[in-house]
Amino acid sequence: MTIDNTALLTDQYELTMVSAALRHPVAHRPCVFEVFARRLPDGRRYGVVAGTGRVLDELADFRFGDAELEVVSRFLDDDTVNWLREYRFSGDIDGYREGELYFPGSPILTVRASFAEGVLLETLILSILNHDSAIASAAARMVSAAGSRPIIEMGSRRTHERAAVSSARAAYLAGVAATSNLEAARTYGVPSAGTAAHAFTLGFTGPDGPDEKAAFAAQIEALGVGTTLLVDTYDITQGVRNAIEVAGTDLGGVRIDSGDLGVLARKVRDQLDDLGATSTSIVVSGDLDEYAIASLRAEPVDTYGVGTSLVTGSGAPTAGMVYKLVEVDGRPVAKRASHKESRGGAKTAVRSARASGTIVEEIVHRAADDTPAVDGLNVRPLQIPLVRDGSPVDGLPSLADGRSHLADALVSLPWEGLGLSHGDPAVPTRFVLG
Amino acid sequence: MTIDNTALLTDQYELTMVSAALRHPVAHRPCVFEVFARRLPDGRRYGVVAGTGRVLDELADFRFGDAELEVVSRFLDDDTVNWLREYRFSGDIDGYREGELYFPGSPILTVRASFAEGVLLETLILSILNHDSAIASAAARMVSAAGSRPIIEMGSRRTHERAAVSSARAAYLAGVAATSNLEAARTYGVPSAGTAAHAFTLGFTGPDGPDEKAAFAAQIEALGVGTTLLVDTYDITQGVRNAIEVAGTDLGGVRIDSGDLGVLARKVRDQLDDLGATSTSIVVSGDLDEYAIASLRAEPVDTYGVGTSLVTGSGAPTAGMVYKLVEVDGRPVAKRASHKESRGGAKTAVRSARASGTIVEEIVHRAADDTPAVDGLNVRPLQIPLVRDGSPVDGLPSLADGRSHLADALVSLPWEGLGLSHGDPAVPTRFVLG
Repeated sequence: MTIDNTALLTDQYELTMVSAALRHPVAHRPCVFEVFARRLPDGRRYGVVAGTGRVLDELADFRFGDAELEVVSRFLDDDTVNWLREYRFSGDIDGYREGELYFPGSPILTVRASFAEGVLLETLILSILNHDSAIASAAARMVSAAGSRPIIEMGSRRTHERAAVSSARAAYLAGVAATSNLEAARTYGVPSAGTAAHAFTLGFTGPDGPDEKAAFAAQIEALGVGTTLLVDTYDITQGVRNAIEVAGTDLGGVRIDSGDLGVLARKVRDQLDDLGATSTSIVVSGDLDEYAIASLRAEPVDTYGVGTSLVTGSGAPTAGMVYKLVEVDGRPVAKRASHKESRGGAKTAVRSARASGTIVEEIVHRAADDTPAVDGLNVRPLQIPLVRDGSPVDGLPSLADGRSHLADALVSLPWEGLGLSHGDPAVPTRFVLG
Repeated sequence: MTIDNTALLTDQYELTMVSAALRHPVAHRPCVFEVFARRLPDGRRYGVVAGTGRVLDELADFRFGDAELEVVSRFLDDDTVNWLREYRFSGDIDGYREGELYFPGSPILTVRASFAEGVLLETLILSILNHDSAIASAAARMVSAAGSRPIIEMGSRRTHERAAVSSARAAYLAGVAATSNLEAARTYGVPSAGTAAHAFTLGFTGPDGPDEKAAFAAQIEALGVGTTLLVDTYDITQGVRNAIEVAGTDLGGVRIDSGDLGVLARKVRDQLDDLGATSTSIVVSGDLDEYAIASLRAEPVDTYGVGTSLVTGSGAPTAGMVYKLVEVDGRPVAKRASHKESRGGAKTAVRSARASGTIVEEIVHRAADDTPAVDGLNVRPLQIPLVRDGSPVDGLPSLADGRSHLADALVSLPWEGLGLSHGDPAVPTRFVLG
């Protein structure tokens, strides 16, 4: 039931605007559209750009075939339908790479195209960037909170089945080690992981009642002694005892999915050590978010499994990015009604940093101006070319490149930028648009 | 890049459990799995079941072809891979119909199948029901708050591009009048709507500056005088004046997308009436949620456009439903570790109501027991057959049926059940499992 074509993943008004514009020179005027976020989600210190690679993938499927034209011809005139039939994006796109940090006002993506070509892409581009950046931004905080301990993303069941795949991708970009989602493993090569749920242990209930040991033995038979056994279906202490009795002290890990995870991790660690299973690791899961992960720092936890909070952006399920027309025929344009002022004109940005690498500020400047210099600081341009004449440029950063870029970028934040508490953006944004 | 097959929209552990179970009789034991929500989102009075129709659609695509088997063979043994190659769900599914209200503990979906067949479906079923029900539950509150005024769903850009399509479907189920999303119009027949954004007006900026009247004239030329003109790109009062000057007093509507919507709606209504455009309607949009919609009740607003809050579930982006094994070989089973107790055994439910139609309570009882009677109250069974021997039953309710069912169900709530304020579920759930 899912249709590969992406042309209808858009709002009707993008098409009615094209229809109205095509009767006038406006449709063909060179325009610049800009994606930016007016603000970060409440109290967040930074955002993480994610989804750019998916935008480029889906742009290639943004074509109006007969089936799509049949739908839009219900409300469009023939001239517009014929124009859509020939539609191929032929413009240029520049933007922040995936895994780049962003701040309020950062020009995350810049689309240069005719009005009609550019306006058509608004909804698709925003859907992807708003979703994926929300997930990556939340995941990056969790990865920071977890320090050197790996996180497994296991939230597919808590979000739309297709959003789950993109969430796993965004989480991996943000530094999460693996996902439970198999489609993400197939489509994006994200490492996948998973062993068993409570249902498996419950399934071994027979005429004589539960049989946790039989369940553990069956799991080890299938997955080997390096597997992780879920020990909290019945009594945790007995569960750990059963696990080691069945698996021996080479058992890979045990998972705790409920209760006070800190207290239980300590009890289970002590019990495992007493039983001689000193290398058996402890995986904890169950309603974890970045705060819960941080609160477990001092506890003997080896791996975190994170679900709901990750795939729902931990309170910020959308990044709030907008796609605004900022320039027409070389002239800056901007909405002027109350509360939603935009800054007209094509812009780009640099980020300044001390010799130590710590970043100091984001400087947004006119795209036509020279890269600004700042005394005593290094300055790095933030946009890279993504699309030229409608085609993705060669050698675009891979998902792995973005992951590595973000890991470096997080290290470049001033120390307070990694704080989980609410506060201002980690660095200010300065607009040099004189 | 989107793959039609749904078999990998699942968690790896569902497959490793199958692998471990297949070596034992457990895999083939008749089991019952149940979907329910332990609680409603914070302070909500009811939930709305949505997604069941999509579950049945995607179940049909849940097949392991060569491409999927190649992926899972990386971590599964040959016997399991061969079993998956032949996998067709052959069990039975009963459940609440789409558009049914639910409360904590309501048995929303019951899957009867062998352990291996049933456990495989957990992730896909939960992804769909958790997402769609979260959206429908939020949308229903907005529809209630809007009273007789229509809502247009326009949130596609604030959620994953595929979730947007399902969100539009769920919102329509909940009573929203139309969507901006064209793929939802194609796939589900949801009425679509849309006219123009600020970019359109800005696009008419020429050497002499902005030309709002030229933009309005072009829109009317393309879409007719019944269209809705967006009047807040520059000065709203001038925008309304320009709109009527260009369109005449037969203009269909004006849209206000920013500022204090209540104050502006009153000002614009007065202005329109003064200009003689007494039948020109007012559409408001811009960060509306159920509370903002309710606060505009006394204002001269004709239509609401709702985006972010609708597609993100207005603070509750996932419904928190779980899929639990409750019965094995006729024996009730349940997890017994702390905090996450479940009630074992196959269950179904009825809802009791007064002669007036007002509902009184949800009664969850054993599936094997007779439908309970309640003195002086009407009792309605809530589950209907959905799948028999792996195939959808004939004559399942359509999306339109669900929409109509929900409209009736909302009328059946006790008056406090429609309150937007935080509170307890509208009716209690009583478990009769003796």
